[in-house]
Amino acid sequence: MYDEIKNFPRPEKELVEALGKVQSATLHEAMSKRGALPHTIKPIWPGMKLCGTALTVKSRPGDNLMLHKAVSLAQPGDVLVVDNDGFLEAGLWGEIITVAAMERGIVGLVTNGACRDSLPIQELGFPVFCAGVSIKGTTKAVPGKINHPLYFEGVVVNPGDVVVADQDGVVVVPCGEAAQVLQAAYAKEKFEAEVIRKIRAGESTMDLLGFNEAYSRLGLSEEP
Amino acid sequence: MYDEIKNFPRPEKELVEALGKVQSATLHEAMSKRGALPHTIKPIWPGMKLCGTALTVKSRPGDNLMLHKAVSLAQPGDVLVVDNDGFLEAGLWGEIITVAAMERGIVGLVTNGACRDSLPIQELGFPVFCAGVSIKGTTKAVPGKINHPLYFEGVVVNPGDVVVADQDGVVVVPCGEAAQVLQAAYAKEKFEAEVIRKIRAGESTMDLLGFNEAYSRLGLSEEP
Amino acid sequence: MYDEIKNFPRPEKELVEALGKVQSATLHEAMSKRGALPHTIKPIWPGMKLCGTALTVKSRPGDNLMLHKAVSLAQPGDVLVVDNDGFLEAGLWGEIITVAAMERGIVGLVTNGACRDSLPIQELGFPVFCAGVSIKGTTKAVPGKINHPLYFEGVVVNPGDVVVADQDGVVVVPCGEAAQVLQAAYAKEKFEAEVIRKIRAGESTMDLLGFNEAYSRLGLSEEP
Amino acid sequence: MYDEIKNFPRPEKELVEALGKVQSATLHEAMSKRGALPHTIKPIWPGMKLCGTALTVKSRPGDNLMLHKAVSLAQPGDVLVVDNDGFLEAGLWGEIITVAAMERGIVGLVTNGACRDSLPIQELGFPVFCAGVSIKGTTKAVPGKINHPLYFEGVVVNPGDVVVADQDGVVVVPCGEAAQVLQAAYAKEKFEAEVIRKIRAGESTMDLLGFNEAYSRLGLSEEP
Amino acid sequence: MYDEIKNFPRPEKELVEALGKVQSATLHEAMSKRGALPHTIKPIWPGMKLCGTALTVKSRPGDNLMLHKAVSLAQPGDVLVVDNDGFLEAGLWGEIITVAAMERGIVGLVTNGACRDSLPIQELGFPVFCAGVSIKGTTKAVPGKINHPLYFEGVVVNPGDVVVADQDGVVVVPCGEAAQVLQAAYAKEKFEAEVIRKIRAGESTMDLLGFNEAYSRLGLSEEP
Amino acid sequence: MYDEIKNFPRPEKELVEALGKVQSATLHEAMSKRGALPHTIKPIWPGMKLCGTALTVKSRPGDNLMLHKAVSLAQPGDVLVVDNDGFLEAGLWGEIITVAAMERGIVGLVTNGACRDSLPIQELGFPVFCAGVSIKGTTKAVPGKINHPLYFEGVVVNPGDVVVADQDGVVVVPCGEAAQVLQAAYAKEKFEAEVIRKIRAGESTMDLLGFNEAYSRLGLSEEP
Repeated sequence: MYDEIKNFPRPEKELVEALGKVQSATLHEAMSKRGALPHTIKPIWPGMKLCGTALTVKSRPGDNLMLHKAVSLAQPGDVLVVDNDGFLEAGLWGEIITVAAMERGIVGLVTNGACRDSLPIQELGFPVFCAGVSIKGTTKAVPGKINHPLYFEGVVVNPGDVVVADQDGVVVVPCGEAAQVLQAAYAKEKFEAEVIRKIRAGESTMDLLGFNEAYSRLGLSEEP
Repeated sequence: MYDEIKNFPRPEKELVEALGKVQSATLHEAMSKRGALPHTIKPIWPGMKLCGTALTVKSRPGDNLMLHKAVSLAQPGDVLVVDNDGFLEAGLWGEIITVAAMERGIVGLVTNGACRDSLPIQELGFPVFCAGVSIKGTTKAVPGKINHPLYFEGVVVNPGDVVVADQDGVVVVPCGEAAQVLQAAYAKEKFEAEVIRKIRAGESTMDLLGFNEAYSRLGLSEEP
Repeated sequence: MYDEIKNFPRPEKELVEALGKVQSATLHEAMSKRGALPHTIKPIWPGMKLCGTALTVKSRPGDNLMLHKAVSLAQPGDVLVVDNDGFLEAGLWGEIITVAAMERGIVGLVTNGACRDSLPIQELGFPVFCAGVSIKGTTKAVPGKINHPLYFEGVVVNPGDVVVADQDGVVVVPCGEAAQVLQAAYAKEKFEAEVIRKIRAGESTMDLLGFNEAYSRLGLSEEP
Repeated sequence: MYDEIKNFPRPEKELVEALGKVQSATLHEAMSKRGALPHTIKPIWPGMKLCGTALTVKSRPGDNLMLHKAVSLAQPGDVLVVDNDGFLEAGLWGEIITVAAMERGIVGLVTNGACRDSLPIQELGFPVFCAGVSIKGTTKAVPGKINHPLYFEGVVVNPGDVVVADQDGVVVVPCGEAAQVLQAAYAKEKFEAEVIRKIRAGESTMDLLGFNEAYSRLGLSEEP
Repeated sequence: MYDEIKNFPRPEKELVEALGKVQSATLHEAMSKRGALPHTIKPIWPGMKLCGTALTVKSRPGDNLMLHKAVSLAQPGDVLVVDNDGFLEAGLWGEIITVAAMERGIVGLVTNGACRDSLPIQELGFPVFCAGVSIKGTTKAVPGKINHPLYFEGVVVNPGDVVVADQDGVVVVPCGEAAQVLQAAYAKEKFEAEVIRKIRAGESTMDLLGFNEAYSRLGLSEEP
Repeated sequence: MYDEIKNFPRPEKELVEALGKVQSATLHEAMSKRGALPHTIKPIWPGMKLCGTALTVKSRPGDNLMLHKAVSLAQPGDVLVVDNDGFLEAGLWGEIITVAAMERGIVGLVTNGACRDSLPIQELGFPVFCAGVSIKGTTKAVPGKINHPLYFEGVVVNPGDVVVADQDGVVVVPCGEAAQVLQAAYAKEKFEAEVIRKIRAGESTMDLLGFNEAYSRLGLSEEP
């Protein structure tokens, strides 16, 4: 298999956009509790959101040459998803590459590494989800892979998967499941709105969500 | 002893409210430097504050059935304090249970676990102090305990204790010491205001706070 | 050598001020990727910035007597840089010492330890860069050192060095290199502005920054 | 209450010795899954074991004056249990204090801090359970407490409790429950020996331990 | 897809055994630097080794019901590979389940969670590779998955993959690549033996391994 | 200054050997509590010891080309001290480079990174002090520095400094202070032997080491 793969199927734009309007946690639930990246990957500024198609990059710790290459291959609507071995003492992504990415139509970055230039990035309005912020510079010397699957703790990310991120973190919806997950998410949103309405009308989650039965099965002793 | 305890003495409302107007660090000092929970428990949004009466829950990592049960037992003014074994890869607390808690008059959550739905929770204005944010869903299957004492590193929390939290973190005032701690906190606030006034008038903390004597006792060599 | 050193050369004020207008990451690059403190030292409130002359303090974990002494020795424009062995379960720095520091003209604090009173500190507008926030009180009993060099992972800080900090973290410019680093930083800013202009005109970072050559040297196989 | 408490009830020697012959994990189970200290506290040398009566010490990070004092108060069979705020960059306990402790009849040390002189300590045959090993020296300057309760994550340790530690970690049996926990532990050992015998005779843990019912309640779909 | 999958292709026994005689690091290199599990998963006793066929289990933190079920499904030569969300405050695996596993012919355990009964497990001679040791007990209440793929940071593990572990850690060879990886590993062993022979004859790794060229390309300035 | 420096003063062999016979913690105390590397750097096998002259290497995370170059420059009695930015997901040092290092007369390795081939390294009897063990391979592509000062948390290491390491960790004695530190260490060993003798004769550390005065100054309340 080639180190650098250029072509992969991307889901339909409308589908991606629709998924981007759903909360990340709802999508995770709608996928039977799959797809959530580790909780350590967070927005560099509170309130950031993103939604797009994964273009995956495996780069070595503290080296971002593969990211520059990946930017040059991206299509509008892509999100770079970068595995940097969780290294946090180098800012893989800064202002210049942000501008270059925005010019290509890239709509965000997700990485288990660190970024820098957080202030200019905020001003540019480019959503970055990462595991740290570091001033330190990078090298541009080491081989990596583009558009191979990435494995984070508990999750695989394939190029073309839909990536949705908000304040809670990042969720990845496999390309082939996108339509079905969207429907399940809508059903979940509707159900939850109804639950909330009933709670506000005085009902208890123990009754509404069927937890009384689960609870009584625990066989706990209760103070009368 | 029952697994689930329903009744415990709560301090007077006025006392709780008065404590809630004092800074958490001041209460800690007023208690002879006791009562501060580990520094890893922080507000999910900057600026959040809470004050209330502890209702304690021991739940297993990533399971929140006991929290739903605890909500159904709470009284207005209660704060849920939850030991989840420090597990951060599941969002124990989300939008639905927040609405349910607010309906019961619960005034906040404190946990060494993680939460989700941070955006809706902020919009609802419900203060949450936790050790992480995770998208991931929970189970509702595992036994725990309600209103048993909880032990965090360096601190015991009993049901009925007063919990005060702000940007610096969380402090717990034992129910039986609440009145006396409040008086000590007032004295401390007064003293500190006076110290600040004197510093602004040109005095040094070394003189004002008696540190010269402590310093000279160290026997350090000083450049003349 | 004395434990407490009072006199050390400070760089010219204009130079310090000029460095303070440059982004921390740019200074790090302008110094051949040196001078960046560990990424765990961050502003206690988003958006804080500082620039000043290092006055260094080595204090024992959870003890701040040396900090009070250091405040009494500081000159306007100084930044306290404090090595507290990375201890995070005590708030070394709070409101009172902040007021005292501001009275002396101290312009900020940098530490691998923790602080408290984050709300009053924000209201006072005093920039603090630290590794954590803790309610817990300190002792005032243990010897330390003032104005000895400090060693953080990868960096030495000498008294009189210029300290610049922003959202990305903290960078330290050796006093004797300040003028030369400033010029290199200006050159870098100019170069980067030009790069960004060209990217916006449609050029790629692979071409602009000479990365094609580096990339082709990797010998990666590419999908045609 | 005094900072330094000298007298507390100790359990009978025979009881302590009998508990020391049971595995730590068995005691934890025999106490309804209570009493286990955080998993980060481990023997400094593989194979170390200890059993004794808790003499509790709260010392400040990196200061061991209170430990020297505590040694002078100990009785034969005591184990020092020390809360040092989890600080790991100082060796609280070394060869000299080990010799002094052994002269007093102290039978071991348990701490969430760090130790040093691990080689001489092994040669002396003194069991130490700690969270790290550090060369670095300590101060002898800061107040603490002797024989107050200590709170570790999930556990309270009172002076006079029985402390049992082995390769798996440390468990604390409340003094007043010691006799009853011992009986429960014997019952558990007997039950487990019987279970193991049956497993060796070909039975499955799913049958033997009643897990089939729990498993079928999960409602999982199985490949036929 | 079923939650619990029973059948999957296993590689030939001879192939597995042959892989088990190669060092884990050599296999990783022979797979183009793939397959190594996170470095935090280590033998509970120094010197442990294992080699077998992966039977994968996803269990919730601190719950081991799925492990008991998995044992009942295993075939001789299987290794249980368990994703427990990296939870370390419960001993998922102890003496009883070890005996049961050995009766089934299971040859080892690999998990990102924690184990207990480390002493009896050593005496039984059953290799366990885990991320921690904890006394604490588990629940048997929560659903999971058997023989679904597991994703660790950087690696996917499918049922039927070959798992090889030694003092350095754990490597996973995909079932379909096993024969080819073995040949590559043999070639690597031969090459390395030859390199070592030449080094002992006085040659330098810079010459032997072609590093001079790579080094000169760095363009570093050298003291003459 | 050159990136690669070849010449630096080394201390006399006899002095280095004599320092190597002293315990690391004693040397740290003899240097007024300086020189101890972070406690996370430990022997890969229990019982390893080393003593030699520092040859310093700054390499990028997961790249070991600079280490191969450094080996080719070393002289008998050198210890490689390597700053790898604390990266733990790559084994920087393995069997081949160990053989090459031993051929050059290198007597050990100290690094804040990770190593592999721990079993062959033990068999070769080469002491390695590192912060982790990882199977994962390295790149040989990135520039670094040889024989520049290295800064670890709290310590500077210059080429030519004496490095002594044992079970407790690593201590660095500046070349120019070696003779004087040795004398201070001898005095300390003699003093400690005398203290131990007196303790065995029944004296208390509180009396012997003058701690009664320090303790009484704390002003603690004691149970009569």
